[in-house]
Amino acid sequence: MIFASDNAGPAHPRVMEAVMAANAGHAMPYGNDDITRAARAAVRDLFEAPEATVEFVATGSVANALALACLARPFDGIFAHRVSHVEEDECGAPEFYSGAKLILIDGQDARMDPEALDAAIREAAGRGVHGVQPGPVTLTNITELGTVYTLDEIAALVAVAKRHGLAVHLDGARFANACAALDCTAAGMTWKLGIDAVSFGGTKNGCLGVEAVVLFDPAKGRELELRRKRGGHLFSKHRYLSAQMAAYATDGLWLEMARAANARMKALIEGLSTVPGAVVAHPPAGNMAFLDLPRAVHQRAMAAGAKYYIRSEDPVDTGDPDAPLRCRIVCDWSKTPEDIEALLAAWRG
Amino acid sequence: MIFASDNAGPAHPRVMEAVMAANAGHAMPYGNDDITRAARAAVRDLFEAPEATVEFVATGSVANALALACLARPFDGIFAHRVSHVEEDECGAPEFYSGAKLILIDGQDARMDPEALDAAIREAAGRGVHGVQPGPVTLTNITELGTVYTLDEIAALVAVAKRHGLAVHLDGARFANACAALDCTAAGMTWKLGIDAVSFGGTKNGCLGVEAVVLFDPAKGRELELRRKRGGHLFSKHRYLSAQMAAYATDGLWLEMARAANARMKALIEGLSTVPGAVVAHPPAGNMAFLDLPRAVHQRAMAAGAKYYIRSEDPVDTGDPDAPLRCRIVCDWSKTPEDIEALLAAWRG
Amino acid sequence: MIFASDNAGPAHPRVMEAVMAANAGHAMPYGNDDITRAARAAVRDLFEAPEATVEFVATGSVANALALACLARPFDGIFAHRVSHVEEDECGAPEFYSGAKLILIDGQDARMDPEALDAAIREAAGRGVHGVQPGPVTLTNITELGTVYTLDEIAALVAVAKRHGLAVHLDGARFANACAALDCTAAGMTWKLGIDAVSFGGTKNGCLGVEAVVLFDPAKGRELELRRKRGGHLFSKHRYLSAQMAAYATDGLWLEMARAANARMKALIEGLSTVPGAVVAHPPAGNMAFLDLPRAVHQRAMAAGAKYYIRSEDPVDTGDPDAPLRCRIVCDWSKTPEDIEALLAAWRG
Amino acid sequence: MIFASDNAGPAHPRVMEAVMAANAGHAMPYGNDDITRAARAAVRDLFEAPEATVEFVATGSVANALALACLARPFDGIFAHRVSHVEEDECGAPEFYSGAKLILIDGQDARMDPEALDAAIREAAGRGVHGVQPGPVTLTNITELGTVYTLDEIAALVAVAKRHGLAVHLDGARFANACAALDCTAAGMTWKLGIDAVSFGGTKNGCLGVEAVVLFDPAKGRELELRRKRGGHLFSKHRYLSAQMAAYATDGLWLEMARAANARMKALIEGLSTVPGAVVAHPPAGNMAFLDLPRAVHQRAMAAGAKYYIRSEDPVDTGDPDAPLRCRIVCDWSKTPEDIEALLAAWRG
Repeated sequence: MIFASDNAGPAHPRVMEAVMAANAGHAMPYGNDDITRAARAAVRDLFEAPEATVEFVATGSVANALALACLARPFDGIFAHRVSHVEEDECGAPEFYSGAKLILIDGQDARMDPEALDAAIREAAGRGVHGVQPGPVTLTNITELGTVYTLDEIAALVAVAKRHGLAVHLDGARFANACAALDCTAAGMTWKLGIDAVSFGGTKNGCLGVEAVVLFDPAKGRELELRRKRGGHLFSKHRYLSAQMAAYATDGLWLEMARAANARMKALIEGLSTVPGAVVAHPPAGNMAFLDLPRAVHQRAMAAGAKYYIRSEDPVDTGDPDAPLRCRIVCDWSKTPEDIEALLAAWRG
Repeated sequence: MIFASDNAGPAHPRVMEAVMAANAGHAMPYGNDDITRAARAAVRDLFEAPEATVEFVATGSVANALALACLARPFDGIFAHRVSHVEEDECGAPEFYSGAKLILIDGQDARMDPEALDAAIREAAGRGVHGVQPGPVTLTNITELGTVYTLDEIAALVAVAKRHGLAVHLDGARFANACAALDCTAAGMTWKLGIDAVSFGGTKNGCLGVEAVVLFDPAKGRELELRRKRGGHLFSKHRYLSAQMAAYATDGLWLEMARAANARMKALIEGLSTVPGAVVAHPPAGNMAFLDLPRAVHQRAMAAGAKYYIRSEDPVDTGDPDAPLRCRIVCDWSKTPEDIEALLAAWRG
Repeated sequence: MIFASDNAGPAHPRVMEAVMAANAGHAMPYGNDDITRAARAAVRDLFEAPEATVEFVATGSVANALALACLARPFDGIFAHRVSHVEEDECGAPEFYSGAKLILIDGQDARMDPEALDAAIREAAGRGVHGVQPGPVTLTNITELGTVYTLDEIAALVAVAKRHGLAVHLDGARFANACAALDCTAAGMTWKLGIDAVSFGGTKNGCLGVEAVVLFDPAKGRELELRRKRGGHLFSKHRYLSAQMAAYATDGLWLEMARAANARMKALIEGLSTVPGAVVAHPPAGNMAFLDLPRAVHQRAMAAGAKYYIRSEDPVDTGDPDAPLRCRIVCDWSKTPEDIEALLAAWRG
Repeated sequence: MIFASDNAGPAHPRVMEAVMAANAGHAMPYGNDDITRAARAAVRDLFEAPEATVEFVATGSVANALALACLARPFDGIFAHRVSHVEEDECGAPEFYSGAKLILIDGQDARMDPEALDAAIREAAGRGVHGVQPGPVTLTNITELGTVYTLDEIAALVAVAKRHGLAVHLDGARFANACAALDCTAAGMTWKLGIDAVSFGGTKNGCLGVEAVVLFDPAKGRELELRRKRGGHLFSKHRYLSAQMAAYATDGLWLEMARAANARMKALIEGLSTVPGAVVAHPPAGNMAFLDLPRAVHQRAMAAGAKYYIRSEDPVDTGDPDAPLRCRIVCDWSKTPEDIEALLAAWRG
């Protein structure tokens, strides 16, 4: 009953088989192999972007950091939501790779407010040489709070950025879950709306550890490769990284797994009606939800073996068994309807 | 017939099985899992260092960069051989992570000369505040030219460093091949000689992609973890990284594979007596050798399907079929006596 | 009638004379001269800190950046008020020198709220390895909004920092104006309250361009020197930098000039009763004030030759002559009662 | 009798007068003042480059670091002579500002050998993504060993760089001394030969502390300003920095002082015929020379009050009074024929 994160789940059998199959004999290192060429092609097809720069890394943090480093100058500001992975959970990696500074934007449910973004860009521009310059904007879909940006909402934010001549990056650690939630294509959520760069996540959604950095500007390819190497992220036995992405991006496996995870979360939310005192904190759109449950309910579930995060900023030290505590629940592709029912049952006691 | 590098070889079946086995069900992410704890313990046992800081990453470049960043200050110089991976093949990663500057030391066959090291340290110290300060020394065993430092040679260099109060790092991308060549233990080649930090390589020797950063000072653990995270190198699904190292460090698999690779190279060198005009360039000690062969011999082997690197700095543009060209040949654990004979046959024509 | 900033003012005659006097004959470079030794001693006397590390630089931005780089690790967060020079007006210099990340704290009138600081430190600590670690706290006195922290308010913030084991830095770009406002000693506002490092400003207060970085930990001296050199801030003809500070820190010139500047501002604030529609935005304590004045009043003063900043974030584009616009007025040591009366007259029209 | 460095000398009266004159009343800060505009214009006239980007800083180290940071990418190599200020005496500042790595080139008397430069560029290019990429070339005239590059020698090195598409920077810490030695114009030694960027030194040649960063590409201006600010090098009371450069670059003062310093050195070299055992180590072209003198001769001069550097790498510990020790002698603009005669006399004893 581990619902702590989608990265607590296993890899999909088809991904594992691809890694096994990649282990046949010798292959030239550093990405000069057929599997890597095939994986790159599969991602380009998936994004309907035959010219795009596509390179693979093993973590989402570095995918974001490298993409942003290719878009930002060392004296720029990067506009990110206050509640975002680049700000809260990457220990300064985006700043380390780019030299730039994050400028935090507010907005409901981890979604940037276009007016707030516009105001922040104008404020930065107004500082002249004294402050960091307006640089790229980075969005996350689905967001850190499990909500989703609609295509119109993304378009509105891109419009603000483009009005100021700024590039836009999309942190797609849960890209597939967003496409599944919006029932849109990868191209439809990105370059067709004006997005310049994407961290296309595989790790959280059924891979062992692989993310694709996608830059729709083909001219950025060499810079991306060199920044990746300088960061120590160029795999020598590259085929094992590529094989995961090749399987993931082929025959819609990426979308199939995301749909499954989203469906489980939908069932969990519906089932909450049977859990006394359960309240949904943000409108969940994909495979992640934040819930308020009475302390006693959490204790009961934990005692039954459930594992998930209770947010540390909550006042966990009151003795009141009815005091609501906020938790984060994440479903991965492998969760079954029975798993969901088991968690609900543990909460109901 | 790919002899371009040991990282062109496959992973060992026992390593692959460990990765498969790790894929059962859910596990807490970021290294908070049993497999990671077991892998850490296995490496500490291997080094007879129960207190050592041990963390895992996926590439040798970042293992070196993180280890050196934990030993060097941003205004230090790092003493490395002119012919070393940190200088030639990491695109500035050690400088990126540490902020420090490499100071290059000469010495025969990629082995640092103790007098040259001592002179360089004294010269740096003599610059006062104007130059970078004497910082850590980094050695590689086996070296970039396939030669080996004996234990006495390592001890002599460590003595120079310690006399000046400097730490010593060992780049062990081919650590196992060195232990096999010297018939010594991991502890005997490192902390028992005064080595402070090791990049313990698994990737080139039968793993998919895993290296252990080993710092014998237990107090360095937190800094290493944070620098790894800031570099985007903390794996979320950490079990797949750890499973490789657990298998590699258990029951002597690491040494078994290295012995096999070294034995193949030994056979290749012996077989050279049958190849007209073949000359060994540096005394090969492990699984890598540099050979001078007539251009015509290379052309014949390439035509027969052999793949290996001919060093670009050689004058490859003369038309003379007898002109010797230097090549690098590397054997990995999976090479068979038949593979060796096949390459020799291709050279003989 | 330039009231744009105290750095728009001239240097004090005694400072200029010291620079002239320093120009006699030859002197050893890089601070190995008698004037530098004397200046260091004068600053140590001023702070009653005979052992303190004291080095000189030419700008306040680098004084802050170097002091913070000596206190913060590259994976730390630096706690600063949202309205502070390090955040708004140094183009990322503190991050560039330290590698650390700023974490912004709220609080009335540019003064950090102790509860908000404590909450931010606890939140950072709660992120574990995923976020930057709690690092130094940096305060500014007098603040960016012209207000002052009382000694008790500083003590309360230092208490929060120390409870979490964190160092505290004081940005003293207007240090003298704060001492004059609080009628306290340099020691009384710093190390006696637990402050670890100070940027002791001279530039804004009657020097040509000199700041002292003061670290009360004598062991930090070498690191500070090396970071300064690496940043390109070690002056070769150091005597000209030191001569300014020697004059500034001697016979209370620093305090004499600050008192004069504060007195002028006090007179200006009192005189506002004669300016229809003038409103003071934040309680001014030193030589800087933020005022709301009707647009027409500003236009009248500008027409009469007054120069000062009207904050860009204000809605300057409404046509309404009575619309209040916020301006910043700063007095330097050289302003006379007549200068103040002239500005008031220009506003009155 | 201080001959340790030209930065041990005083500022020229006309420079001091300009600084005094700049101290009249108030002026807008950060370079928005008439004196700065005039100084910029004077430097552009001096270089016959009306469109050039010209900004001022206070040290030569940061002038080099900023110029190189505007020419190099973080994954580039910067080609510099092994015996150069950027390599030996800037504590890693060029790497800190640019993120790039220095690649050292050999050549007689601190002058790069064109073949060695070409070979190093080709070697770097041959490493592909594994090594840093070929980046800018930086030359120094007059060199760190007091020799001079002729215009033809500069042209030959620029030709190599341009053939590979690389930019060229000139470290002109002693730019004026080189122009005086070659009897050429500033334009003739720089952009007319293809030089892209210059650190135009004033500090060592009669100023208090000012250098001009000159980028002949006008489009680089904004980047230079922002990198300077981020490094903490934007002076608020900018007029005092600019006033020095305005005086220095006007009416040929820069050249007048350099000619005087060079003439003194010429006289000193000629006078050496009267000093038994004196040997000139490198052909001195400007105001700096390296000499071998018997230990006893040095001791005699030191006893008589002479101050200059004896290079630490020399074997200073032999007791032999006749053992030659290498010293560096530098003349600044203020040295008189009597000063030269006094030093020679001290050596003669």
